[in-house]
Amino acid sequence: MAMYKWSMPGVLAPVLTPFGEDLAPDQAAFVAFCRSLLDQGLGLAPFGTTGEGPSLAVEEKIALLDALAAAGVDMGRVLPGTGACALTDTVRLSAHATRLGCGGVLMLPPFYFKDVSDDGLFRSYAEIIERVGDARLRVMLYHFPRHSCTPLSLALVERLVRRYPGTVIGLKDSSGDFSNMAALCQALPGFAVYTGSESLLLPLLKAGGAGCITSHANLNGPAMLELCRNWRGEGAEALQSALLRFRDGWAGVPLIAALKAAVAEATGQASWRRVRPPLVELAPELWPDLRARLDGARG
Amino acid sequence: MAMYKWSMPGVLAPVLTPFGEDLAPDQAAFVAFCRSLLDQGLGLAPFGTTGEGPSLAVEEKIALLDALAAAGVDMGRVLPGTGACALTDTVRLSAHATRLGCGGVLMLPPFYFKDVSDDGLFRSYAEIIERVGDARLRVMLYHFPRHSCTPLSLALVERLVRRYPGTVIGLKDSSGDFSNMAALCQALPGFAVYTGSESLLLPLLKAGGAGCITSHANLNGPAMLELCRNWRGEGAEALQSALLRFRDGWAGVPLIAALKAAVAEATGQASWRRVRPPLVELAPELWPDLRARLDGARG
Repeated sequence: MAMYKWSMPGVLAPVLTPFGEDLAPDQAAFVAFCRSLLDQGLGLAPFGTTGEGPSLAVEEKIALLDALAAAGVDMGRVLPGTGACALTDTVRLSAHATRLGCGGVLMLPPFYFKDVSDDGLFRSYAEIIERVGDARLRVMLYHFPRHSCTPLSLALVERLVRRYPGTVIGLKDSSGDFSNMAALCQALPGFAVYTGSESLLLPLLKAGGAGCITSHANLNGPAMLELCRNWRGEGAEALQSALLRFRDGWAGVPLIAALKAAVAEATGQASWRRVRPPLVELAPELWPDLRARLDGARG
Repeated sequence: MAMYKWSMPGVLAPVLTPFGEDLAPDQAAFVAFCRSLLDQGLGLAPFGTTGEGPSLAVEEKIALLDALAAAGVDMGRVLPGTGACALTDTVRLSAHATRLGCGGVLMLPPFYFKDVSDDGLFRSYAEIIERVGDARLRVMLYHFPRHSCTPLSLALVERLVRRYPGTVIGLKDSSGDFSNMAALCQALPGFAVYTGSESLLLPLLKAGGAGCITSHANLNGPAMLELCRNWRGEGAEALQSALLRFRDGWAGVPLIAALKAAVAEATGQASWRRVRPPLVELAPELWPDLRARLDGARG
């Protein structure tokens, strides 16, 4: 079958979401941060796990997308997370994102019911795609079994791509299981496979994958883009090693809260430090040690 | 501390949700079925797991509650499920339910992020309670680790009850772990502990629990109410055994789809047979065998 040509960057930042004192999204800070990431050459994947997407109501996500569009952002480089537990929520947000010209949507399966069948998951994605009913819709499946507890099997992905070629165009794999990513690349040439961890970026690029969508791209995206440009070159292993050193600097801390603390420090904006429950802000006593480790990793 | 006096029935039906051909909730069928359950003396717990609550958008749940209120239903006997992943969704629905006079709300913790801390879960419930800001709010915690993957520890429950006595008034325990239910009853006298399975109804009543909120109450509620009335009597064991026989008739089939098929058969309304993805309807070939087993269990 003819595969859709995916034109997003090799690195998308799963954009962190800043919150005001009332825990409402801070739109101005969000838009400014998105601009800075785009200026680095990255794509944007707001409302993923790192962006606390499931902790936001659909209307809050719509308002943030509208703010990006109103600010004149190139929406073709935006891939918002739209997968919710309720069919109607996912349809509403996916349709809105598509109308705004988003390059695609990143779609978790409904994740409340566990041990659901592939038939049920196929039915879920199919209903959503049919209801959005827009030829511009591009769906990147989101495979993150740790949080969704609802894995997307290779057989399911193949079935969706066969039924909706040109619409189901890729998958973000946050399982950490490289063999799954390699199998997808092999089974579905042209399908855009992104790893959820930069630790697998070089192997995935060699296997025919598209790139990475990973938390640390909020801070370290340019280094990841450099590897995407030069993965065939001599310096590729060194670039990959540098990514790992940066990543290892964050080991053992609550990652989302820690990344937000770093952006708060860099921007001087308190909105970046806040997280919505059930997450909690980074304990202040963790920050000095973390900064020391990061400075070491950079040095 | 002075505990709130809970006045709901000992059995609440986690009401199934009927869907039209377009998978929109069938309000008329829902209201009529709720009336029939209330006429049996049951309370109502719509939008729980059995009611596919997480598969409905907040506005769809609000519309169904409004329809119940408009139909003149005694909202004091209604305990809707309101816990969602997004803080703002849970607040919106809980506030609306409370304004309508609902006897309480059944509240899952936010269930996307896994391995969250008790501090984060406490913060979640506290934020919701403070934001609803209504002295009439009654929160029944919903502990269902199989689907939420986010257990509510005894320490967390005690902390919530200490901070919000008279607001956090009970817990539905769908873990199947009787020792947890007994520990709650012992630690928190007057706290309304409901089991998610009627298989534990008699032991729980003996331990000081409040009753059950269980799928099969959609069809077999009166028998459960009878045990709640007569659990101290000589016939209690026989009543408990009869509940188990009825329940065992449904073993090995997808329960929600099967219960809906049964209501569809009883009412002649196709809306009852439909489920939202990721669930799938009961395969027609399963129904004759299931009916035979149920007839046997009743005989």
